[in-house]
Amino acid sequence: MTTHDTHTPADSTPSVPSRRSVVTATGATALAAGLAAASAGSATALSPATAPSAAPAAAPPGTDPRAYATVARAIAVYDEHDESLVPTYLRIVKNGLPVRRAKATKRVLVIGAGPAGLLAADLLNRAGHDVVVIEANGNRVGGRIKTFRKGGHENGAQPFADPLQYAEAGAMRLPESHPLLMALIEKFGLERQEFHLVDVEVDNPSKPANRTWIHVNGVHMRRADYEKNPARINDTFGVPAAYRTKTAATILADALEPARKLVRDKEGTALVDGWVEILRQYGHWSMYRYLTEVAGLDTRTIDLIGTIQNLTSRLHLSFMHSFLSAALIDPKTKFWELKGGTAVFADALYAPVKGKVRLDRRAVRIERSGGKVRVHTVSEDQQTGGEGVTEVFEGDEAIITVPFAGLRHVTFAPPLSYGKRRAITELHYDAATKVLLEFSRRWWEFTEAQWKEALDSIEDGLYEKYRAGGVAHGEYLGAHRSVKDLGVSVPDGLKEYFSVFRPVAGREPEASHVRGGGTVSDNANRFMYFEHATPMEGSDGGIMLASYSWADDALKWDAFADEERYLRALAGVQAVFGRRCEVFFTTKCRTQSWMRDHYAYGEASVLFPGQHTELFPDVPTSEGSLHFAGCHTSIKPAWIEGALESAVRTALKVHTG
Amino acid sequence: MTTHDTHTPADSTPSVPSRRSVVTATGATALAAGLAAASAGSATALSPATAPSAAPAAAPPGTDPRAYATVARAIAVYDEHDESLVPTYLRIVKNGLPVRRAKATKRVLVIGAGPAGLLAADLLNRAGHDVVVIEANGNRVGGRIKTFRKGGHENGAQPFADPLQYAEAGAMRLPESHPLLMALIEKFGLERQEFHLVDVEVDNPSKPANRTWIHVNGVHMRRADYEKNPARINDTFGVPAAYRTKTAATILADALEPARKLVRDKEGTALVDGWVEILRQYGHWSMYRYLTEVAGLDTRTIDLIGTIQNLTSRLHLSFMHSFLSAALIDPKTKFWELKGGTAVFADALYAPVKGKVRLDRRAVRIERSGGKVRVHTVSEDQQTGGEGVTEVFEGDEAIITVPFAGLRHVTFAPPLSYGKRRAITELHYDAATKVLLEFSRRWWEFTEAQWKEALDSIEDGLYEKYRAGGVAHGEYLGAHRSVKDLGVSVPDGLKEYFSVFRPVAGREPEASHVRGGGTVSDNANRFMYFEHATPMEGSDGGIMLASYSWADDALKWDAFADEERYLRALAGVQAVFGRRCEVFFTTKCRTQSWMRDHYAYGEASVLFPGQHTELFPDVPTSEGSLHFAGCHTSIKPAWIEGALESAVRTALKVHTG
Repeated sequence: MTTHDTHTPADSTPSVPSRRSVVTATGATALAAGLAAASAGSATALSPATAPSAAPAAAPPGTDPRAYATVARAIAVYDEHDESLVPTYLRIVKNGLPVRRAKATKRVLVIGAGPAGLLAADLLNRAGHDVVVIEANGNRVGGRIKTFRKGGHENGAQPFADPLQYAEAGAMRLPESHPLLMALIEKFGLERQEFHLVDVEVDNPSKPANRTWIHVNGVHMRRADYEKNPARINDTFGVPAAYRTKTAATILADALEPARKLVRDKEGTALVDGWVEILRQYGHWSMYRYLTEVAGLDTRTIDLIGTIQNLTSRLHLSFMHSFLSAALIDPKTKFWELKGGTAVFADALYAPVKGKVRLDRRAVRIERSGGKVRVHTVSEDQQTGGEGVTEVFEGDEAIITVPFAGLRHVTFAPPLSYGKRRAITELHYDAATKVLLEFSRRWWEFTEAQWKEALDSIEDGLYEKYRAGGVAHGEYLGAHRSVKDLGVSVPDGLKEYFSVFRPVAGREPEASHVRGGGTVSDNANRFMYFEHATPMEGSDGGIMLASYSWADDALKWDAFADEERYLRALAGVQAVFGRRCEVFFTTKCRTQSWMRDHYAYGEASVLFPGQHTELFPDVPTSEGSLHFAGCHTSIKPAWIEGALESAVRTALKVHTG
Repeated sequence: MTTHDTHTPADSTPSVPSRRSVVTATGATALAAGLAAASAGSATALSPATAPSAAPAAAPPGTDPRAYATVARAIAVYDEHDESLVPTYLRIVKNGLPVRRAKATKRVLVIGAGPAGLLAADLLNRAGHDVVVIEANGNRVGGRIKTFRKGGHENGAQPFADPLQYAEAGAMRLPESHPLLMALIEKFGLERQEFHLVDVEVDNPSKPANRTWIHVNGVHMRRADYEKNPARINDTFGVPAAYRTKTAATILADALEPARKLVRDKEGTALVDGWVEILRQYGHWSMYRYLTEVAGLDTRTIDLIGTIQNLTSRLHLSFMHSFLSAALIDPKTKFWELKGGTAVFADALYAPVKGKVRLDRRAVRIERSGGKVRVHTVSEDQQTGGEGVTEVFEGDEAIITVPFAGLRHVTFAPPLSYGKRRAITELHYDAATKVLLEFSRRWWEFTEAQWKEALDSIEDGLYEKYRAGGVAHGEYLGAHRSVKDLGVSVPDGLKEYFSVFRPVAGREPEASHVRGGGTVSDNANRFMYFEHATPMEGSDGGIMLASYSWADDALKWDAFADEERYLRALAGVQAVFGRRCEVFFTTKCRTQSWMRDHYAYGEASVLFPGQHTELFPDVPTSEGSLHFAGCHTSIKPAWIEGALESAVRTALKVHTG
């Protein structure tokens, strides 16, 4: 038996670990009480006509009761006195870190040049600290803010045929309810335009149209029509009578009500208490469990809301995550997008610290000794996989913004604490994949008359030929003159190859005639969005987010090489919107698999049931001179706001510590 | 509102879906009864000294009660009269399909040349049917049987420096308890040798040694020592007093006992009833929920058994899967491996139908009309991503062995039934990744004396230098003469680069001196195995499965390109086994990410909670002339036996149908 002394973590000694003491006392009581309550609640749990009743469950034995309040405050962005941290954070974002009395400045290593790292670096730099930002990517900053655009990471080349087009690989919709992000956009003077989660009238963008499609079980309906007649789709799922005439959104909202009512219209300590109660009852549950056991929903109804409300692929994940997301990604939320792409936000964060950022340096080893932090890095040539330059950076403290999935492959000497190691090992990161297709015309805005004109300009009678389902092969792929005008000529081989992927033939559905908004399908594409709903001056074309998928839905796309996704995605678009859009296909496409991304290891931390209370309290905590930032250290994973909160929190800690 | 008539599935009409009628009756009663029982049981649920009490739970509303028996019989491989199908299947595997009266033979399209497809094709071919096997891979058959070997899929080239070495990308351990597989191995006359899940004495392979390592929380212990003194490791997890002195295996076995006792020593209808009971109680649970709510385990104890018994990364997945796996991957199971690699089994299946197999044909579209099945395929050039040959195959019936994750991107015309579509959409496939490193010596078999001799032969005193932790860099990477004898010269650049990945320095642990067996670590490598424990005549070298990981553990490796994994995996090996093994590193390595595999889309179907009863009953069922085979259509996903069962089942169906 041998012990590597240097590996033994300081807190792994057997003497009374903080979470252990509750096992035999609190844990047992809570379990008994919880199950008794569950039993009492069960009588009405299956009456969908009445409000679903809550069935409080036991906490897993050994859960630290303090974890609930920690997580609740992180959700609310409150301090330990239940007061909002946002005003302070906003002040710092706008005016910088508080002025300190004269004190030795620190040399601070910031690992990762995403929004968290760049903002933290800027704040510390302005406050007089000596900052260096170490970024693994060799060709860009921004992290999961990534825009395919001219002048961007692809050697500056324009990725699309249309010189004006750009599209988002990552963050695309910026909620107005995120104060730090909104403040910075204003501070930077970035031009924004509305991101329409719900489509608007083509001729009157201020008027919601709700005419995008729901395409499931072979039924093709506009969202507005579905709201009038939910049974037409609900019946194809075979939902029980009580749900036949309710929309999926309503069924879900009703199902979430037992949790929502615990926090609605609350603030301060009452809000914290509300979140604590939600966490106690459902914090270690999956969404699947909540929907079956609290909402009393049956399999078919879960199929329905899972398909339309984008829950299916995340049913097994934490209830908390989808519960919080459902509140944000909602027709009632106002979203913005930035003109030029979200990357202009990263540009603005980058500009003041550009000289401090070292690109192409992946941190692989973080050592602490003698009061210093040393970060060992490698330069990577991803083509050959190796043998690059190694470089060591030394500082007094470090802010580590690397996703925890990535830290799993970083060596720490000495090792991190037990809690941090478990969090790094277990924190779940979820897949998300986007497939972006370029079209030479924004055909989704067309009326039937515009379709007729465009198609008949290719070949007389082609409009009717498509409508009759008489176009058998990929013959007209990119056939519209506007494609050629962009300098694209589609090879015959590609047309023939594409014919195999064509969707099942059918009548051409009516013209979409929408601007913006999202369409849902039960085919592999799942969610489709029209970006940049505000017309782009000088361009009649547009990029369609032809597939935005999560979790298992995304991993199925990830098994394909990038180039193999495009024709499949186009066929999936055609299955919903009809075949004729192929005439505008420019063949210029992009795709992003965040799970396969070399430095991201996933879209974001989307926790498993139980991880909020079991792991999260150990995620943002500092370990000596190491501080942890990034959206995963907030309860807004995948959102820029969470990254910004963490930047301010850690910069403040370094500055005042 | 438009309907694509051709998309409307036959069974999606709203009239009384089979699963709906139970929602308001059985479901509610079961929920109430289940929760009452849970409450009654909670008083003792946290007394680990006594047997953990079962807390039966409610079935999700709408669960078809018949699903339990369907799944139970699939687990037992029983027919609807609760009689074992195995004797019949064995007879068919040995002697072929039953002789039929003269009848028109069928043209059968078999999609996929894995073990299911090849066996089904062979059986049907011998019975006089006209068979064609359509395989997407251009360079091999075998599916998830894949051996890195000379004469294999890499243009026949030898993948390792040692001309005799080979290693498994996929199936590596063949349980003796799998009768169809064992019968075929015997029939084919394949040479087998024991796969030692538990290591054996180097000089006496019949004697278990149990001296491989457990390396967690900085503690480094042999398995045998851990069994004598579990507290030494358990305390580093901070487990409660009741679990301090129990091994992780014992704690897990005790935890599973409430479920196990329901099927132990049962057969026939009693066995089916036992499985039904397990499915009713836990069939829609995750392993995490079972461990917390039934076994009453706390977080720390779950960390312990999750780490050592390989449950952590699958805690959120179905209880059923891990429960069934735990019974199989157990020191008490006898495993075999095949001399020359598992691929020799695929070779043997392939040989009789070689002329019937069309490689490089990926099925992308399956049409049924006019009593015929037509499978549209594309030839793929994975380098360029496309524009290959398209070819259509026509037959009377088809056996589809493609993993359901892959079928998500196959178009069916007409569409499949509702149940099959849901299963294809939702059935979870899990990641599994292997990293294989070649060494010029099987250093794990060494004694200290052999280490001294080998190291001092490189440089006088090197043995002591390593023991003193005095070797700072990658200077001795591949430095032993046996590496050069294999024709490998390690470039200086690689040595320098490797130095960054080196593990935290420490004292060199004592020589492993083991043969075979598995080592577990809490570092990113997780599980390490020595393959081919039976010495290979003419070779002193060996391949180490340096990392075998599942689910999230695997996805973290998957974010790296193949070549980037090797040095990281070597450093992980060194963290456990000591630095000195680097002198034998040949730089020849291989890795396999099943989730990133272009045609596999995952290691296997590892279901989410609820999917056994919700989806599985619709997985193996035929749809007209389409039959479904592959390990995912059995309850032995990831095991060859499940594929073989499905081959016999579907071949029989085609033959007698």
